[in-house]
Amino acid sequence: MKKYVAEFIGTLVLVLFACGTAAVVGCNGADPNAAYLMTALAFGLVIVAMAYSIGNISGCHINPAVSIAMLVSGKMSVKDFVGYVVAQFLGAIAGAAILMGILGGTELGLGQNGLFEGSIVRSLIVEIILTFVFVLAILGVTSKPEFSKVAGLVIGFSLTLVHIIGIHFTGTSVNPARSFGPALFMGGDALANVWVFIVAPLVGGVLAALVWKFLSSKKEA
Amino acid sequence: MKKYVAEFIGTLVLVLFACGTAAVVGCNGADPNAAYLMTALAFGLVIVAMAYSIGNISGCHINPAVSIAMLVSGKMSVKDFVGYVVAQFLGAIAGAAILMGILGGTELGLGQNGLFEGSIVRSLIVEIILTFVFVLAILGVTSKPEFSKVAGLVIGFSLTLVHIIGIHFTGTSVNPARSFGPALFMGGDALANVWVFIVAPLVGGVLAALVWKFLSSKKEA
Amino acid sequence: MKKYVAEFIGTLVLVLFACGTAAVVGCNGADPNAAYLMTALAFGLVIVAMAYSIGNISGCHINPAVSIAMLVSGKMSVKDFVGYVVAQFLGAIAGAAILMGILGGTELGLGQNGLFEGSIVRSLIVEIILTFVFVLAILGVTSKPEFSKVAGLVIGFSLTLVHIIGIHFTGTSVNPARSFGPALFMGGDALANVWVFIVAPLVGGVLAALVWKFLSSKKEA
Amino acid sequence: MKKYVAEFIGTLVLVLFACGTAAVVGCNGADPNAAYLMTALAFGLVIVAMAYSIGNISGCHINPAVSIAMLVSGKMSVKDFVGYVVAQFLGAIAGAAILMGILGGTELGLGQNGLFEGSIVRSLIVEIILTFVFVLAILGVTSKPEFSKVAGLVIGFSLTLVHIIGIHFTGTSVNPARSFGPALFMGGDALANVWVFIVAPLVGGVLAALVWKFLSSKKEA
Repeated sequence: MKKYVAEFIGTLVLVLFACGTAAVVGCNGADPNAAYLMTALAFGLVIVAMAYSIGNISGCHINPAVSIAMLVSGKMSVKDFVGYVVAQFLGAIAGAAILMGILGGTELGLGQNGLFEGSIVRSLIVEIILTFVFVLAILGVTSKPEFSKVAGLVIGFSLTLVHIIGIHFTGTSVNPARSFGPALFMGGDALANVWVFIVAPLVGGVLAALVWKFLSSKKEA
Repeated sequence: MKKYVAEFIGTLVLVLFACGTAAVVGCNGADPNAAYLMTALAFGLVIVAMAYSIGNISGCHINPAVSIAMLVSGKMSVKDFVGYVVAQFLGAIAGAAILMGILGGTELGLGQNGLFEGSIVRSLIVEIILTFVFVLAILGVTSKPEFSKVAGLVIGFSLTLVHIIGIHFTGTSVNPARSFGPALFMGGDALANVWVFIVAPLVGGVLAALVWKFLSSKKEA
Repeated sequence: MKKYVAEFIGTLVLVLFACGTAAVVGCNGADPNAAYLMTALAFGLVIVAMAYSIGNISGCHINPAVSIAMLVSGKMSVKDFVGYVVAQFLGAIAGAAILMGILGGTELGLGQNGLFEGSIVRSLIVEIILTFVFVLAILGVTSKPEFSKVAGLVIGFSLTLVHIIGIHFTGTSVNPARSFGPALFMGGDALANVWVFIVAPLVGGVLAALVWKFLSSKKEA
Repeated sequence: MKKYVAEFIGTLVLVLFACGTAAVVGCNGADPNAAYLMTALAFGLVIVAMAYSIGNISGCHINPAVSIAMLVSGKMSVKDFVGYVVAQFLGAIAGAAILMGILGGTELGLGQNGLFEGSIVRSLIVEIILTFVFVLAILGVTSKPEFSKVAGLVIGFSLTLVHIIGIHFTGTSVNPARSFGPALFMGGDALANVWVFIVAPLVGGVLAALVWKFLSSKKEA
């Protein structure tokens, strides 16, 4: 039970702090790159902060795309997968609600994702690629016990990376729960297109698990 | 005795370097985000520098909200708690005094905190949340001996995180001593409202200790 | 065979994500330094993400200049060297092709390199120096087993460093494959001068291997 | 002998890459903070790159203020101290010369230091404080063998910290060799005042060694 609470808290913090940064920095800077960089760092550093705290309890997935990769890799039961994903979505919704309360409405946005040049196909492709790289890094760094000390830093920096390049395109989801929370309160286009940011990260996560299974298997290809 | 000296030095350096950065970068940049990012990094990197030096002596709390969490978690005696907090406040006052001397007055400010949209309630809520996340990360990363090598980096990056999101709101305190030092010399609103930045971080630190006690206990919920 | 696949994927991701960042951030910011910093971080963080994933399979060279240094240092067979370099060039070409597809053309550029003030000699000198420092850091950090946990972080930050200073000059190659992929699709000057960014990094890598051999040999000079 | 060569190379790279960044980013950005941040990162990341390569040979002081602290702490012989400092000054001069050659003159500056508001006294105070914190971090992180893996990262980030706050004041020296190299070629005020950036860092380094000796001694105060 505690691990579900941990996933709830972690995903809540991810949405509140990182989507919150996206919301507040967009409004006060002349230079979009400085705002993008701060947002990318916020996403990465939430992972750092959570990985070394709730990571001890639940592994700190706080992302259904990570959980599905763990399921496909045989590192997680179906029961736990369902529990994790429910906790992640509830956490994301709670985080978006608190963010809206603090900001006093949705005028600044809630860090929701959007289609890249209005194209569903391009957005799907971008998000699949971004999630593939992010989850591949997670599967790699968690595969060797000697990396356990630095894994949280590596995963955090990898999430920063996929934001540095991806904010320009879709705002970077790579996480269905992170996209759903803000979209639920924003409504409109954000909610209408949220399925893109649920489907693509899950596909990217599964692809990463399959490629990693191939690369890391002992059998020579 | 030496650990109190260490806490005094560490808190002095925190205020002088990190509040000092907030004071000097605010005045020369067109883009607030670049200034925010530098300030957020300054706070985090002071922790890195101090954690691996005075951390060997005192544990490098340099923050009463951290010390109260350690007290509630049973990792610190009441006597040491009082000694640490006194040293931290004296260090913060000394740091603010030196900063004022170097800057030649308080014209640029001293990195003092301020209310979010003039609201005490909102500021309390924001600071409780920010401190909760920061202290939860500290309790998590210090709970496993294998993390001791990277703990200073993780805690520093977590402090950077709470500044990236929080500077927009209250300037981010999460540390009663860090707020009191500059407020004492600034006077006015900064001093009148400083109790907010003393009470909220202490509440956030205690909450983090309680949640961490629940999450990390062996007994299944 | 798998290690060649790993090098292909890693170099593809390097070009797609890091050259991609260079392409997209150049177009939307008033401040070139913020754009440079994001690009420098993207290059470094791709290394972090890939070092801890495909690094387990192939060592994550994803750069012919690194592979030639390993060859000269006797840490790699000629056969593997050829296989790695072919995989790296194919990966870079694939990465540039995907990037062009996502961006819908080459209007924003593909993060290609360019001559420093139009001078071939100066560009050669700059790239030899940049690559020398980058590869020296790699040879040093990979020479002690106790550094294996942090090697990916150190190498990534070193690549960020050579970009922070070098983007101003040549855009920073230090990697023949990374330069060739984008140049192939850009054509024109980028392709005409690409030999500079193939030759200089290889020279810099060999020089680093020779200097490191001297510095690290047990025999006193 | 090799360790002197290592110090020569390391200090050369420090001046060429980090003072070089200061020179080139100052000229192309509207926002001084973004330029300051890049410079601060360049100084820190040179330390990261060099600490894990030449650090294996010489310990990577590349700074007379660090060497004098090691001398005072009894971790270095007088003979080695002299050899290190000579190598560091020669390396800094060589680095500044190469930088001038690449930039085609001194029009952009060479990252030289300058007095804070024209005041020698204030500049001395600022540099003593900055160096004290930087060297205290070095002495702390190198005092525990378990920190050896992360020491290069911690020291690099600490150097970034003292630049984030100090660039505003004096440009941050904390290193007599780093200041002397550029000043020699710039002449004028830079050379006339260079003694400030030689004396103050040495004083700061000695102070840090004395405070660390007190804090880390087993005898209770």
